[in-house]
Amino acid sequence: MTKAAPEKEKAKTAALADQIRAGDRRALARAITLIESTKPGHAEESEALLEALLPDSGNSVRIGITGVPGVGKSTFIECFGLQLVEAGHKVAVLAVDPSSKVSGGSILGDKTRMEELSRHPGAFIRPSPTGGTLGGVARRTREAMLVCEAAGFDVILVETVGVGQSETAVSEMVDIFLLMLLPGGGDELQGIKKGIVELADAVIVNKADGDLAAAAERAAAEYHAALGLLRAANPDWRPPVLRCSALTGAGVAEVWETVQAHRRVMEASGARAARRAAQAGAWMWSEIRDGLLRRFKAHPRVAGELDSLEAEVRAGRTTPTAAARRLIGLFQGE
Amino acid sequence: MTKAAPEKEKAKTAALADQIRAGDRRALARAITLIESTKPGHAEESEALLEALLPDSGNSVRIGITGVPGVGKSTFIECFGLQLVEAGHKVAVLAVDPSSKVSGGSILGDKTRMEELSRHPGAFIRPSPTGGTLGGVARRTREAMLVCEAAGFDVILVETVGVGQSETAVSEMVDIFLLMLLPGGGDELQGIKKGIVELADAVIVNKADGDLAAAAERAAAEYHAALGLLRAANPDWRPPVLRCSALTGAGVAEVWETVQAHRRVMEASGARAARRAAQAGAWMWSEIRDGLLRRFKAHPRVAGELDSLEAEVRAGRTTPTAAARRLIGLFQGE
Repeated sequence: MTKAAPEKEKAKTAALADQIRAGDRRALARAITLIESTKPGHAEESEALLEALLPDSGNSVRIGITGVPGVGKSTFIECFGLQLVEAGHKVAVLAVDPSSKVSGGSILGDKTRMEELSRHPGAFIRPSPTGGTLGGVARRTREAMLVCEAAGFDVILVETVGVGQSETAVSEMVDIFLLMLLPGGGDELQGIKKGIVELADAVIVNKADGDLAAAAERAAAEYHAALGLLRAANPDWRPPVLRCSALTGAGVAEVWETVQAHRRVMEASGARAARRAAQAGAWMWSEIRDGLLRRFKAHPRVAGELDSLEAEVRAGRTTPTAAARRLIGLFQGE
Repeated sequence: MTKAAPEKEKAKTAALADQIRAGDRRALARAITLIESTKPGHAEESEALLEALLPDSGNSVRIGITGVPGVGKSTFIECFGLQLVEAGHKVAVLAVDPSSKVSGGSILGDKTRMEELSRHPGAFIRPSPTGGTLGGVARRTREAMLVCEAAGFDVILVETVGVGQSETAVSEMVDIFLLMLLPGGGDELQGIKKGIVELADAVIVNKADGDLAAAAERAAAEYHAALGLLRAANPDWRPPVLRCSALTGAGVAEVWETVQAHRRVMEASGARAARRAAQAGAWMWSEIRDGLLRRFKAHPRVAGELDSLEAEVRAGRTTPTAAARRLIGLFQGE
């Protein structure tokens, strides 16, 4: 493929941006595919598109949600999303799952799990970008979020599972981070990865229905006590513990009320704007660090010595400082 | 100053290394001053010294200790250290405190707080390196640790306070990480920075004496329950909650027994060697990342555009990806 002339490229990008702003879902899907592409040239195209759409982005409430497999995230998102689209909202559902395979991934890959929501004209569901590092997957999801906002989606749900550092990555791209738990009581927290509870702006005890209703109530009290032991991230917001049933729909409306209450509190104090500015700045530095490290690792002379030097360091035969200095010297052609 | 001939430098380094191996305390202090120096040429000298001493390092138990100011860390270290030196151990006390000033710093700066220990021939106390970023302070402390080991110190205590990420940095350079708390009960945990409790291999409730003895017992039970809610970092080790009085010395011997029990368990499973190899590898990568970023920020063309581009990103006027790409391009002279 020969490279298109710059003018032609520009016109193409402008046209795609216009279609997205008009809410064209196929254009939106195409744009996200472009963002996720690793083909040469696509990075520049996707960057130009994002720059064009940036002024139209930002007008949504960005909600992160995590929980172990089996907690009922998909059923919850189906139920929560349907309530929102029926109230006139436009809801985009994205995912961060660095473990997802080419076959579709472990979360959101199977849209039939959100059958009704996925067919609703007010909803847009996109599985996790396949493959790549967490940094790469998170970056593409953040960019997809901006494009969805430009397309008029005013609620963005970003789902993740407890894999690696993915919760941290998601909490750093959203306005509010929800942790969904089972009615297992205090013991349940043991299954949650370190530090995740502390990222939560609200805890949702799901499956608070039928036989589990009483257990859910007890669990909510236990989580409430456990959260009380942690220092609040924000002085104006004490993370609440909610109960809901994604099956019966009970308590799901209260989750949305909590999201709105959180937004009001954060906007009033200026914490929301400050959080978004800090997130954008942190994202830039994360891109810089990733980019530098990627180029470092790809450098032929570095690549040629990296493994053996790292093995020497791990075995205690050379100091980390000396090894690092030598490798950086190779990278900079010294 | 003219640069000394390479041969002369080598001989000087070899002589200093020999003095350190022989346990010469003035040579040890001089070596650490060299490590902490930011003068041109000293980095190479210090690196050569560390390479020379590396085979003699590693033969110590590395203990990290943290706790809020006022918890009694210094009094504990004085008491704990005296028990150890009197039993024939050689104890080095180092500190990581990126907030410490040129005047001496907030921890370990005032040696009179460990008056008896600091005068004991079996002990060596060194305040936190002054100034610099956490990364820099941590690196110099890690290097000082290796030199102390080469000088025959078989117990290294690394103290820190809850400033920034310093606990994480310390936990990543030691074999066992101790969290010292006051007998304040569950509420006390609220004052502890997020995630610190989860780094602890043991919790020590200090000031378990006099009027506070009963409170300390209750607090220990509460901490024990709270720790039970967290997932253990190692399947073979459940962090215990100990009570002690640095004032009366009660319970201090049990802390050393816990350190030894932890070491036996970790050695038996191979976790200790694995942890040290992983720490060395992580240290190398941290040196690489820091080094790349330092050179990036110092690059004249990057420095010239960084602030304005970051402000654009924070204000939502340019995407983090585009800004990062542009800056990396400048760095690499593209």
